[in-house]
Amino acid sequence: MALPPELLEIAERVNNWGRWGDDDEIGTLNLITDDVVRDAAATVHTGHRVALAVPLQQNGIQTGLIPGRVDPLHSMIALNWEMFGSGSVATSDDAVTMGLQAGTHWDALTHVSHSGRIYNGRSADTITAHGGAAFSGIDKAGHVVSRGVLLDVAAARGVDRLPTDHAVTPEDLRAAEELARTEVRGGDVVLVRTGQMQLYLAGDKHGYAVPAPGLSIRCPEWFHARDVAAVANDTLTFEIFPPEIEGGWLAVHALHLVEMGMLQGQNWNLEELSRVCATEGRYEFLLSAMPEPFVGATGTPVAPVAIL
Amino acid sequence: MALPPELLEIAERVNNWGRWGDDDEIGTLNLITDDVVRDAAATVHTGHRVALAVPLQQNGIQTGLIPGRVDPLHSMIALNWEMFGSGSVATSDDAVTMGLQAGTHWDALTHVSHSGRIYNGRSADTITAHGGAAFSGIDKAGHVVSRGVLLDVAAARGVDRLPTDHAVTPEDLRAAEELARTEVRGGDVVLVRTGQMQLYLAGDKHGYAVPAPGLSIRCPEWFHARDVAAVANDTLTFEIFPPEIEGGWLAVHALHLVEMGMLQGQNWNLEELSRVCATEGRYEFLLSAMPEPFVGATGTPVAPVAIL
Amino acid sequence: MALPPELLEIAERVNNWGRWGDDDEIGTLNLITDDVVRDAAATVHTGHRVALAVPLQQNGIQTGLIPGRVDPLHSMIALNWEMFGSGSVATSDDAVTMGLQAGTHWDALTHVSHSGRIYNGRSADTITAHGGAAFSGIDKAGHVVSRGVLLDVAAARGVDRLPTDHAVTPEDLRAAEELARTEVRGGDVVLVRTGQMQLYLAGDKHGYAVPAPGLSIRCPEWFHARDVAAVANDTLTFEIFPPEIEGGWLAVHALHLVEMGMLQGQNWNLEELSRVCATEGRYEFLLSAMPEPFVGATGTPVAPVAIL
Amino acid sequence: MALPPELLEIAERVNNWGRWGDDDEIGTLNLITDDVVRDAAATVHTGHRVALAVPLQQNGIQTGLIPGRVDPLHSMIALNWEMFGSGSVATSDDAVTMGLQAGTHWDALTHVSHSGRIYNGRSADTITAHGGAAFSGIDKAGHVVSRGVLLDVAAARGVDRLPTDHAVTPEDLRAAEELARTEVRGGDVVLVRTGQMQLYLAGDKHGYAVPAPGLSIRCPEWFHARDVAAVANDTLTFEIFPPEIEGGWLAVHALHLVEMGMLQGQNWNLEELSRVCATEGRYEFLLSAMPEPFVGATGTPVAPVAIL
Repeated sequence: MALPPELLEIAERVNNWGRWGDDDEIGTLNLITDDVVRDAAATVHTGHRVALAVPLQQNGIQTGLIPGRVDPLHSMIALNWEMFGSGSVATSDDAVTMGLQAGTHWDALTHVSHSGRIYNGRSADTITAHGGAAFSGIDKAGHVVSRGVLLDVAAARGVDRLPTDHAVTPEDLRAAEELARTEVRGGDVVLVRTGQMQLYLAGDKHGYAVPAPGLSIRCPEWFHARDVAAVANDTLTFEIFPPEIEGGWLAVHALHLVEMGMLQGQNWNLEELSRVCATEGRYEFLLSAMPEPFVGATGTPVAPVAIL
Repeated sequence: MALPPELLEIAERVNNWGRWGDDDEIGTLNLITDDVVRDAAATVHTGHRVALAVPLQQNGIQTGLIPGRVDPLHSMIALNWEMFGSGSVATSDDAVTMGLQAGTHWDALTHVSHSGRIYNGRSADTITAHGGAAFSGIDKAGHVVSRGVLLDVAAARGVDRLPTDHAVTPEDLRAAEELARTEVRGGDVVLVRTGQMQLYLAGDKHGYAVPAPGLSIRCPEWFHARDVAAVANDTLTFEIFPPEIEGGWLAVHALHLVEMGMLQGQNWNLEELSRVCATEGRYEFLLSAMPEPFVGATGTPVAPVAIL
Repeated sequence: MALPPELLEIAERVNNWGRWGDDDEIGTLNLITDDVVRDAAATVHTGHRVALAVPLQQNGIQTGLIPGRVDPLHSMIALNWEMFGSGSVATSDDAVTMGLQAGTHWDALTHVSHSGRIYNGRSADTITAHGGAAFSGIDKAGHVVSRGVLLDVAAARGVDRLPTDHAVTPEDLRAAEELARTEVRGGDVVLVRTGQMQLYLAGDKHGYAVPAPGLSIRCPEWFHARDVAAVANDTLTFEIFPPEIEGGWLAVHALHLVEMGMLQGQNWNLEELSRVCATEGRYEFLLSAMPEPFVGATGTPVAPVAIL
Repeated sequence: MALPPELLEIAERVNNWGRWGDDDEIGTLNLITDDVVRDAAATVHTGHRVALAVPLQQNGIQTGLIPGRVDPLHSMIALNWEMFGSGSVATSDDAVTMGLQAGTHWDALTHVSHSGRIYNGRSADTITAHGGAAFSGIDKAGHVVSRGVLLDVAAARGVDRLPTDHAVTPEDLRAAEELARTEVRGGDVVLVRTGQMQLYLAGDKHGYAVPAPGLSIRCPEWFHARDVAAVANDTLTFEIFPPEIEGGWLAVHALHLVEMGMLQGQNWNLEELSRVCATEGRYEFLLSAMPEPFVGATGTPVAPVAIL
């Protein structure tokens, strides 16, 4: 079974399969060239940094809605241990178990499949339990450093946070672009702020989770037209949830990850960044958001930083 | 029991307790000011990026020598799962268990204690199994973005990799600084290359582990005099191992982490960076090496990137 | 600081330190002799078996109240994997992460300490993060097979389940013993049924957790007088919770584990067993409740079985 | 692709699909009736117990040969934690991550599939990453208590341990049965001793792993003819490894688990049991080997006990 016809039409328009060769595993990250990064570094004016990850902790962002995606269990394997004899320098050491997409994360291109396919037309069966993703695992992503642009949709609409049933449209993105006084261009990493993160920060993790505002199925074409390299936002589900159309579960995921081969980020805390950008009147910056290179993984925690 | 007298004297000279106030938890990261970062961004010439983390995988860098510090166990919790019904977009999701210092990592300041103390004179008992590090956990580090300088000691000594019994001295650092044609200065993150990583990359993880070249106990003063913000290298043990002096187990750890309050990084892959720096004749760059914000953790995986 | 005076008096009366020698690590399990087990086997009449463990699953018995004690995360590391080539026999394999006391479990004697001491007067500091419990870890328990006696306090009081503020008293135990038509004797493993498990089985895990009926601080003397080897029940907290007396948090734990050196079991599902015992008019049986031998662990999952 | 013809013929002869109905998920465990257990309890003469599990620890039985099947990582989540205030009773708590088949374990019937099928003819696709085994997960096994019979093949052949290339044959089993002076009968759990465990106990885990003696493909028919309920032995691979015939990888697994629906156990320590049985001149006993009820799991740690 395939996507609803409405989505298939969009899929056809945004599809990047073969664009960077049949062997390609990283999709739109190809758009981040050295020149893009050099220009991105030139946007740095003050050197001020804003970290965008939520704390990783057992009482974290997950509510149990997504089976198996557990918040980090942090435990100690050594505690002021005088490993080399009494009175020696003592070590503390820890271990963690977590769902790779539990906190602030990147989806790998392989996080979703549809109609049995992943990005670049490969079979979804190339993901296995014993080996993970043979193609397009997050370890293939390499480096994610580029110009970041904050599209503060909530601010552009004059609200603290969008209503939970608000699907972010291309018109919203355009309005936020005007607020940002820059044009989104090839190789950019776009951060879309809904303000939904405020609920989590205020302690309401269930309210944060669902229902939630998020990207409309009309957004992928907008990103595609501008050759955006990656998109992240401040929600759990990334796209409007519940979905806009009948049978549209994870439609934006399918368009971005499978059709376009474009990384997605979720649970990014854009609140401080929003304040700093508003104060400085600048919404572009150097963004470093390196994936942890888990081999074959379909997602990864990330600790992104905006450097203004 | 305390450190050997020889180390106590050094400890006194490099001690930073109270330097940034009694409440400080981040030590030399205070030296990375906005100005430092702005200037670091100005070092970017080509936009070329070099990722410095080793792949995270079950057959990784650990040999079992350090009890409990397990390489990542990657497992699947969903595999092309049509969560929303047959034919719907399918998701794959994964989980991981790992020692936080198993791969390329930062030690938090709390990774070691000596004489019952951690950085800034706090009691080592403020680290607990149920809460982790109440002070100076890795989540407190915030952001690690600064000018990076590669001190390629192996190259400066004209070898591929240092002998396994070579303790890197201040003289070595100075020679590498000359090769680098830049002077290490306040707020820098210094990457010291021994070449030892070549053993791991060649498949010899036991040879990589011990014995290993690494920093001498004479290095901390050199870093201290220059107000270095953090130091990382390409070995498992960071400091020469076995140690140079009787009872000197983890002496450099104690000086850096406890006395100076300076982050240390281990298992960084500096091989490609060495080649790129040699080719470009430039050993300075913008370095982004954001810690994953595990609350209360005494270390964290990191996916550093040098932006040249 | 020590226990409240009221508890210290009881502690003195039930204390078993030194009773089985200064080297002893297993306490009242010493009371299970070969003869006890031979006689226990002779209680088997029908061969009917009743399993007493709750299913181990991610949506399990934990509510998050006890930090770190996570329900099992089950994940796949191989899934119909044709490890030996296409068409070969395929294997599926799985991994789990869990709090050792998350489900139906035994507390090891080291699960609690008070006044810096564990069972047999050893220092609580003999439990460490890197080694676990050097003494009286659950791996030392060896085998737990004995006569089991169901003391169905709820049935003896004529209710389905005890009120949540009911502290089970020696009088209750005595009444249940009469219902059971057997006398508790040396080496027995006593199962005390409150009926609280019904809440969990009905889907109300929060109601199950707290408040909860459980053993009174007066029970340890009753068990001590009869030389009971171990006690388990069908609640999360084992003892009445919140506690009966000011400052009495985990008082029964301290008396059983530290003073008596007696294993405790929690989250045992005694519902089916209650029905079978009532039907057969027999409340004694052979009980096998082998701890998993996790080295140095302070608790373990257990899959107990009553053989009638 | 299917099994080699030689195996298909055996498969046909031992197949139990449909024998206990199309809905059956437990196979030969159906053979353990109440009567069988009652009679098994009657074999108890002395009450002496022998535990058969190897210790569960990080430096355990695994060598890394089987990807992802990690030895237990034991870590502390609380350590003498005065959870209810300073001076209160303190708790220690721990967590574990492990491959479910890392130590002494039962394979669930779903541990292997062949030709796309699991026991009772169900599709192998009924095992998924998000749900585990929908049918014949180890949680379905319920209880494993029966008469145990030690077939001490090594002793019957007059050696301490079998050569590593020795395939245990029906003739070997018959000889061990004579040594045991009992006949294997319906519902029995048979423990086959090769002595290979001695290598592991002596510290040679690699020697223990492979090559290893184990069951021949001719054994399943012998067990089938006697209506054995389950079989366990003292090796890592259970069957002779490398296999006896071309393409015969995991052939015995396929015959037992898929065709017969018979549980298999591995890494059972039968050394002490061998000594006790020889001394007492009795090789039958009550065996309790309860699976931990991990929902949907394809294997489980087990702490078996023989009660003589």
